[in-house]
Amino acid sequence: MTFEESYLPPSVDEISSRVAAVQAQMVREKLDWYVCFDPDNVYYLTNFANFIHERPFIVLIPATGTMRFIVPKLEIPHVLSRKVGEIDLVEYFEFPAPAGGNWHDLLQSVIGGAKRVGVESVCQLQIYDAIPAERVRTDIVDRLRFIKSPYEISRMIYAGRIASAAMSDLLAKAEVGRSVSAVSSEASRLMMGMIVRDNPSINPFATKAGAVFQPPKYSDDPHNFTDLAMIMEEGGPHVSLVAPRLNGYASEIERTFFLGHVPEAAKRPYDIMMEARYLALAMTSPGARMSDVDKAVNALFIERGYADNLLHRTGHGMGVTGHEAPFLAEGDERIIEPGMSLTIEPGIYLPGVGGFRHSDTIIITEDGNHLLTHAPESRDDLTL
Amino acid sequence: MTFEESYLPPSVDEISSRVAAVQAQMVREKLDWYVCFDPDNVYYLTNFANFIHERPFIVLIPATGTMRFIVPKLEIPHVLSRKVGEIDLVEYFEFPAPAGGNWHDLLQSVIGGAKRVGVESVCQLQIYDAIPAERVRTDIVDRLRFIKSPYEISRMIYAGRIASAAMSDLLAKAEVGRSVSAVSSEASRLMMGMIVRDNPSINPFATKAGAVFQPPKYSDDPHNFTDLAMIMEEGGPHVSLVAPRLNGYASEIERTFFLGHVPEAAKRPYDIMMEARYLALAMTSPGARMSDVDKAVNALFIERGYADNLLHRTGHGMGVTGHEAPFLAEGDERIIEPGMSLTIEPGIYLPGVGGFRHSDTIIITEDGNHLLTHAPESRDDLTL
Repeated sequence: MTFEESYLPPSVDEISSRVAAVQAQMVREKLDWYVCFDPDNVYYLTNFANFIHERPFIVLIPATGTMRFIVPKLEIPHVLSRKVGEIDLVEYFEFPAPAGGNWHDLLQSVIGGAKRVGVESVCQLQIYDAIPAERVRTDIVDRLRFIKSPYEISRMIYAGRIASAAMSDLLAKAEVGRSVSAVSSEASRLMMGMIVRDNPSINPFATKAGAVFQPPKYSDDPHNFTDLAMIMEEGGPHVSLVAPRLNGYASEIERTFFLGHVPEAAKRPYDIMMEARYLALAMTSPGARMSDVDKAVNALFIERGYADNLLHRTGHGMGVTGHEAPFLAEGDERIIEPGMSLTIEPGIYLPGVGGFRHSDTIIITEDGNHLLTHAPESRDDLTL
Repeated sequence: MTFEESYLPPSVDEISSRVAAVQAQMVREKLDWYVCFDPDNVYYLTNFANFIHERPFIVLIPATGTMRFIVPKLEIPHVLSRKVGEIDLVEYFEFPAPAGGNWHDLLQSVIGGAKRVGVESVCQLQIYDAIPAERVRTDIVDRLRFIKSPYEISRMIYAGRIASAAMSDLLAKAEVGRSVSAVSSEASRLMMGMIVRDNPSINPFATKAGAVFQPPKYSDDPHNFTDLAMIMEEGGPHVSLVAPRLNGYASEIERTFFLGHVPEAAKRPYDIMMEARYLALAMTSPGARMSDVDKAVNALFIERGYADNLLHRTGHGMGVTGHEAPFLAEGDERIIEPGMSLTIEPGIYLPGVGGFRHSDTIIITEDGNHLLTHAPESRDDLTL
């Protein structure tokens, strides 16, 4: 790993090479056009961040030549201020518009002569229905996003460093009585401060600088963040999560920690979680099958007596989002390749005791993997 | 309007009557099942709020009998803590799962024998493809949401009062140098304080207590909120926006205001905006066509010389979201009916001068409309 850190937006060359890769795959799949609607894929191809609402943004990629971008008139200045690379804007006034002026009319006029059009798995039915051609479901952009370019790796190194700094701060300030809202606002302040200092024109629509924790009463239910008044308590396990998206690239680091002492009932599950973590880190290398990592982790947990304490897979992909394919999951038969970024986060959840999970973000190298996030991980180091 | 305010969650009867209305329409459309994926429709039918990610939540409604809800195991405790009414949970362990255990396997096993299945316009292609039956695109739940029940109106009266309080506070504290981030955090603090006092167990996934403003340099570009360091300036027009979703129901109130004095160039556009506002309020009554309101507003603006200053429709629907169908737009041919909730917000945008727009949320009554939000609106009252 000799990549430099970067916080800069993608270059025109970076974006052009992504589009060229999509077009090369379109030729292999004999597609005239590809219709891209998923906001994360649109962001990847244009550097413009949107979200799903009733005024759609749709990127149309021809097999050769310049992309088109169907956008509402109201958003043209924002598209122009963020987009990188060559793209022709196709503007509609409003939704809904009188007949002939709607987004679907424009879609049809751009790709009217097409024979075979590629669409995403998450394509909305109303967009799918508007395509006047044979439609082929194929997630070309999602698959391209699996393998990070050197530029993307440099952005993820940056995001990982900032997330690690926030985790370090969270652990340094951990004490009985500290609330989720205090942790959340402090981590947000710290991460936003760091990235805005580096690049004052960050895109708020591609930024979410969050961090939270769960005290022992809640940590056995890993997505329970319903009570922002939750506070840290003597003992543990507490599970802390720093999972920001920082001006377009995401990172994730999570740590299980204790205050004052480690309850007896927490010692063995912690140690078994660590055993599973080392197993997953050792297995997650080029050539391995994603599902085999998860199977081995689950088998270990089951063998150690925790069959009833499993709630999720071993890890998920990371990139322009904080949660994406591919997955270290029993159902994912893909082969791990260099340039993939994944979380490693085997966990077990014991009602009445709490949750046990660390997470780190890794990048797959030619012969193994490399951690992009860093924090103490041993039971002793995390008894604060 | 004799409805009471309410901040309480829907009753079992309220939810049951929504489901019964969907099922009655399904019978009319000869559907065996309806597949509901849009998180806003899912919330409307269950009181459980989710968002779109790789682990789908899917409500399956049979023509008669109990709804099913396909949910990831990880989220079961949260579904149980929020859901109102009768619903059978169908659980999958993870995404992706080994063959046979995926969400689409469960979908097929639940509706396997169906002949005709209704789906939403925003249905993802991967869900559409998983349905083993004739599929009919029909937005039954969205259409049902057009007409608010007495309970919903009581929630929207509540949301309108809280939003109006935040606007009142924003205007009271307006002064040269005040920043968007100060306005935003103050409004959020005030609205969250009010609703949490009333109901400490509000759902954060159905809550977003936002407010912002645009100073004159930015207000001609109505969706430009890229710079949180923007500050209020002597003169104007500033456009302020309070658009919260408060534990499940939304409201919107916006005001154009000035500090110290009204620049000469701002007087006429302000007055014409007010003329369009009164026209829209007068026309938006039961029996009128949505598009006719927008046509009349646009014709007025064009006649007064502002043809080049239009960027959006006259208004949009409001309910469990802050932006939904139907629309006061030239392309919406629907007839206005009692119980609909809409915004009234004709606006014009003059580069170099600024933006001119008030917005209020209304409910359509038997013979006209009723404002759910309240703030000063005259040029004099809004010169602060």
